Amino acid sequence: MRLSEIGEFNLIRRLRTLCKSTAKDIVLGIGDDTAAIKIATKKILITSDMLLEGIHFDLSFTTFYQLGYKVLAVNISDIFAMGGNPKYFLLNIGVPKAYDSKDIHKLYSGIMKIAKKFGVVVVGGDTCASRQGLVLSGTLLGHADRIIMRSGAREGDGIFVTGTLGDSSMGLMLLKKMRTKNWKLRTSHFPVPTSQLRLIKRHLMPEPKPLKNTEGITSMIDVSDGLLIDLSHICDESKVGAIIYKERIPVSRELINTAENLGLDPIKFALTGGEDYILLFTAPPEIKTKANRIGEIIKRGRFVVDSRGKKTPFKAEGYEHFKTVNSR
Amino acid sequence: MRLSEIGEFNLIRRLRTLCKSTAKDIVLGIGDDTAAIKIATKKILITSDMLLEGIHFDLSFTTFYQLGYKVLAVNISDIFAMGGNPKYFLLNIGVPKAYDSKDIHKLYSGIMKIAKKFGVVVVGGDTCASRQGLVLSGTLLGHADRIIMRSGAREGDGIFVTGTLGDSSMGLMLLKKMRTKNWKLRTSHFPVPTSQLRLIKRHLMPEPKPLKNTEGITSMIDVSDGLLIDLSHICDESKVGAIIYKERIPVSRELINTAENLGLDPIKFALTGGEDYILLFTAPPEIKTKANRIGEIIKRGRFVVDSRGKKTPFKAEGYEHFKTVNSR
Repeated sequence: MRLSEIGEFNLIRRLRTLCKSTAKDIVLGIGDDTAAIKIATKKILITSDMLLEGIHFDLSFTTFYQLGYKVLAVNISDIFAMGGNPKYFLLNIGVPKAYDSKDIHKLYSGIMKIAKKFGVVVVGGDTCASRQGLVLSGTLLGHADRIIMRSGAREGDGIFVTGTLGDSSMGLMLLKKMRTKNWKLRTSHFPVPTSQLRLIKRHLMPEPKPLKNTEGITSMIDVSDGLLIDLSHICDESKVGAIIYKERIPVSRELINTAENLGLDPIKFALTGGEDYILLFTAPPEIKTKANRIGEIIKRGRFVVDSRGKKTPFKAEGYEHFKTVNSR
Repeated sequence: MRLSEIGEFNLIRRLRTLCKSTAKDIVLGIGDDTAAIKIATKKILITSDMLLEGIHFDLSFTTFYQLGYKVLAVNISDIFAMGGNPKYFLLNIGVPKAYDSKDIHKLYSGIMKIAKKFGVVVVGGDTCASRQGLVLSGTLLGHADRIIMRSGAREGDGIFVTGTLGDSSMGLMLLKKMRTKNWKLRTSHFPVPTSQLRLIKRHLMPEPKPLKNTEGITSMIDVSDGLLIDLSHICDESKVGAIIYKERIPVSRELINTAENLGLDPIKFALTGGEDYILLFTAPPEIKTKANRIGEIIKRGRFVVDSRGKKTPFKAEGYEHFKTVNSR
């Protein structure tokens, strides 16, 4: 049924049922002027991220379910980047009124899927009509015993990443190529090889993962805008330099194969492609970790070293709103 | 300078300076993956409200300063409606990249104006390009010792409001009339009588006010969608009925005069016009308060009584997203 038929208040009633929680710390969930929560710890983290149609997503190649999953995933990734645990989520949505209420139901199903995975409760939000496409704005609260900022990196620290880089941006590129061919995409029976599907999935449904042990870690950020930009944020905030080795950057077999087929350089995707939502952190080099050490924090200057040992300065290249010409 | 010239990260740097706070409870403000706050109380309130261009506002008759003021005002109003104190604000903005960075500066000046008035600190948010007009999504956290919900109204309680009703919706109507005449509006030298200017100001820059003493109050909500809708929310949540007396509803001299000049009924604006952002609450009738008692909570049924004692059932009439045809 169209939203214009069921109306705002019936929609909120449905979402309230869908998001109901029996968690004891939730004094009030959806349905009053605000949500109310009993906080067990004294330090809370808050992050807020917006996804706009035409900038962050394209409904011709993402489902509502995937979009719901992603809007919470990107917020969870920010909480993980501080060494925290995600807890309470609020979603503001602006929806064109010709949309079907089933679409919103699917969006919330995606949210609830990842919410349950990480013990997040949806406690509120705002629902309104939009004249300009779909607007999603999520806010996530979390706890942290020890907060890991961008500003603690020290000269001599190693630079580590927790997963492969560049997959998401290659996934996006594949989606865009498919769109120009005017393929109608269906995630269930996809007319592309499984390896490419994996890249696409990393773009549409990122899977944030927390660091199990943050002891000794001096700074951390999630890779959302691209490795070089996000590492630059750490350098800016910590007032240090960095050197990274191309050969050590973890790239997936899928990215290498796909890039080779297209005659493109996979490392370019790994360095500047955004939205991988893995963690980038610094720590003394002797730290015990499964993460890949890709470089070192130095006093000043920012360099990429290639396989022949050639050192090239890098800038904060990647995705920057208002500046980057293409939308994601 | 255009946003496309200064870019996202320079913009964030400026906003960070503008919103800097020395409050001791702010562990981390703007500039990391999340904000971090030390919470003194154990109960927190969270509310999130979105303002979309073409639905909630029209840049042909609001300034960026007023818009910034309003996006925080409407969130503060929600915290007041719970009997709480507003504390920490996050703003997500989606801005077309052709905008000037001065516009965003003005928007934040409006936010900072009302933030300082109520001791609110701007701790974070997300800044991104938008292809579809200006998008504002605010999230506000607050404290409360005692939370006043919509669900506590009891038969026999009086129904109270803390200010005049209908001013904001009449103000909006005046703005729309002016637009059709193609007037270029300037708030400084406005080609309308002062009385009408007051109505317009109540629409563009609502002034939320907290209740000083919430002792004895059984339920509360802020009037954002219109008296009849918001009272219906209290009735729904409290499982009670209500009777209100038209003659007791406080309406401003400005509203009466303007409505008379236009041949319209001021009480219609007071009953169904939204966005007054005053408080509507219920309490035993003997409670000491300066608020206007406009009716009583009854067992069931919802009625409006006119000056001749005629009782008419009312429905939840007012502004409802997806259903209401005209934008605000």
